[in-house]
Amino acid sequence: MSARELRTETVHEIALIERLAGAFTRSSHQLNERHETDAELLRVPGSDPVLALTTDHIAEEIQAGLYVDAELIGWMTVMVNASDLSAVGARPLGLVLNETLPPDVGEGFLAALQRGIQQACDACGLHVLGGDTNFGPRLQMGGCALGVVPEGRPMTRRGCAPGDLLFASGPLGLGGAFALARLLGGSEADGERIPFRPVARLTEGQLLRPFASGCMDTSDGALPTLDELMRLNGVGFRFRITAAESLHPAAAAAASRARIPPWMLLAGPHGEYELLFTVPRGRLERFLVAARAREWRPLHLGEAVREPGLTLPIDGTLRQLDTTAVRNLFGEVGGDLGAYREGLARLAAAATTERARCAR
Amino acid sequence: MSARELRTETVHEIALIERLAGAFTRSSHQLNERHETDAELLRVPGSDPVLALTTDHIAEEIQAGLYVDAELIGWMTVMVNASDLSAVGARPLGLVLNETLPPDVGEGFLAALQRGIQQACDACGLHVLGGDTNFGPRLQMGGCALGVVPEGRPMTRRGCAPGDLLFASGPLGLGGAFALARLLGGSEADGERIPFRPVARLTEGQLLRPFASGCMDTSDGALPTLDELMRLNGVGFRFRITAAESLHPAAAAAASRARIPPWMLLAGPHGEYELLFTVPRGRLERFLVAARAREWRPLHLGEAVREPGLTLPIDGTLRQLDTTAVRNLFGEVGGDLGAYREGLARLAAAATTERARCAR
Repeated sequence: MSARELRTETVHEIALIERLAGAFTRSSHQLNERHETDAELLRVPGSDPVLALTTDHIAEEIQAGLYVDAELIGWMTVMVNASDLSAVGARPLGLVLNETLPPDVGEGFLAALQRGIQQACDACGLHVLGGDTNFGPRLQMGGCALGVVPEGRPMTRRGCAPGDLLFASGPLGLGGAFALARLLGGSEADGERIPFRPVARLTEGQLLRPFASGCMDTSDGALPTLDELMRLNGVGFRFRITAAESLHPAAAAAASRARIPPWMLLAGPHGEYELLFTVPRGRLERFLVAARAREWRPLHLGEAVREPGLTLPIDGTLRQLDTTAVRNLFGEVGGDLGAYREGLARLAAAATTERARCAR
Repeated sequence: MSARELRTETVHEIALIERLAGAFTRSSHQLNERHETDAELLRVPGSDPVLALTTDHIAEEIQAGLYVDAELIGWMTVMVNASDLSAVGARPLGLVLNETLPPDVGEGFLAALQRGIQQACDACGLHVLGGDTNFGPRLQMGGCALGVVPEGRPMTRRGCAPGDLLFASGPLGLGGAFALARLLGGSEADGERIPFRPVARLTEGQLLRPFASGCMDTSDGALPTLDELMRLNGVGFRFRITAAESLHPAAAAAASRARIPPWMLLAGPHGEYELLFTVPRGRLERFLVAARAREWRPLHLGEAVREPGLTLPIDGTLRQLDTTAVRNLFGEVGGDLGAYREGLARLAAAATTERARCAR
């Protein structure tokens, strides 16, 4: 597959965004193009710092029964937005909330929701500035976070070059494992066993901003994130570790209990809210020293390569996985989890064949 | 009624906000208290300009059948947010959108929605910076707007003093008339007759910022807005003109067709997105000169007075209207429009009695 083919292949999500936003005029104050960043970047005329603005809602996660616990819903309302700020290396300034509450919402549920919001704000050094409340038939939560990039360039998804080293801000797969436990025949207890309370990597994002060549959060899962980074940068990625080695121990245990290959927990669409980023070799030493000083141990996944596509060891063999197909699959099967799992297995089998074909 | 009684009387909306947000910690960067402004104000550490951030959604308006036309829905998604920026005198920087689309949304509807958004942005000098799209059973639209107050103090709702003159940025009642036509037995054609396409008063807000002592937009209707300004400032308002004289001609005609008293079109909860503001007499001349230079003719409604409560001529008599009761009524009758109209009529009748009692 050529780099050009890879880039022009259709990702449903990108096509949707283009359909929705393609005709809008652009602001001359905005520093990023569409798809290029996790948060929108803009410069206030006549002022120095770059602002980062992002909005994210959780509606589908609640509808699908993925988020049931009110405290977790409140927590995630903050984190989905804070995580976008982390991916551009912004310092958080504040958050406004949008809540659509069912008219019969209970006091206890409401209290737990607000508690989850406050706990997540505390964990991020964020504050709720205000908000807007509506009433509607279904609970829907969202927010909009504002941050500032005090000096220097903000991080974007663009800039990864062949040879750059690929890192994750922490172990992967908890988002996938949580979804698996909650939705795929898992008992309530299984869901509880997965410690899914992601903390947006705000400190890490600010720390790595001077070093990273490209960065994006894994809100949609690690493989879709890698797909986007490859697409925007015209590169491929080669893993040096197995998917199993990239997993959080609780995620690895969940994969083993569910008897699914570990890499499937990286497929999304429910992610772990880590950062995936690349560091050029020339900045590696300084980056690692800075990280160590903060007692942060990023996970070295592999490196960016010239040849497009994701290569990773599956079942002991290096395979090239069609990440675009992975990214589209959940939508294509209409969210049917059985069909999703079968589709992923088919893609893994196809990956072997593809590799075999390439090797000939 | 004493000022203290008036202030401590319960407004359901305020009580809800306190229940939802009362326990959240506050940011030291935030310049406004809760309820004090239409947009949240914050200062970027180490930087000069004050930022204004606001979020507003239209969910109930769509559910209730008030907004049906896709272009109007798109238009209002922008305007509800831009109007909040206007009320603090901010210059708009940009907007992020939240769209919850039904999975079966048609191409034509979607195109009209995006067209309405772009037209409203053009009318406001705003740009869409980005957004977040979800799919759900019902259409819900929202956004978050960011603005900047370049120098000097932003406007807040607080600062109106007895003797200050009360203005509206333009004729009132179109929001009420539109809701009346759309919902209260009006035909589709009646709704079309009301030119309800409010343009947020951004230029006017920036112009009046150095002059106004208090300002708020009428997104919830003029009377609820006056109620909030009285509550926050411990003042009353006395109208010098009749409600009929404050109305847009199309609103006056609608009231006449529907045989309802003109003042009822000021009751909300669907407003006209004008600004209500007060100007101290000492700044009046300079304000009027500045307004005239921009060919803007604000509407002089009356003045702020020491005695709490709203006094306005109804049916040829000066009456004091219980604006708190007006503000709560729509929620109390569960949105039943017949009951709402009857309730308003009862409040007007009670207003007479109250006045008679006071006079004794």
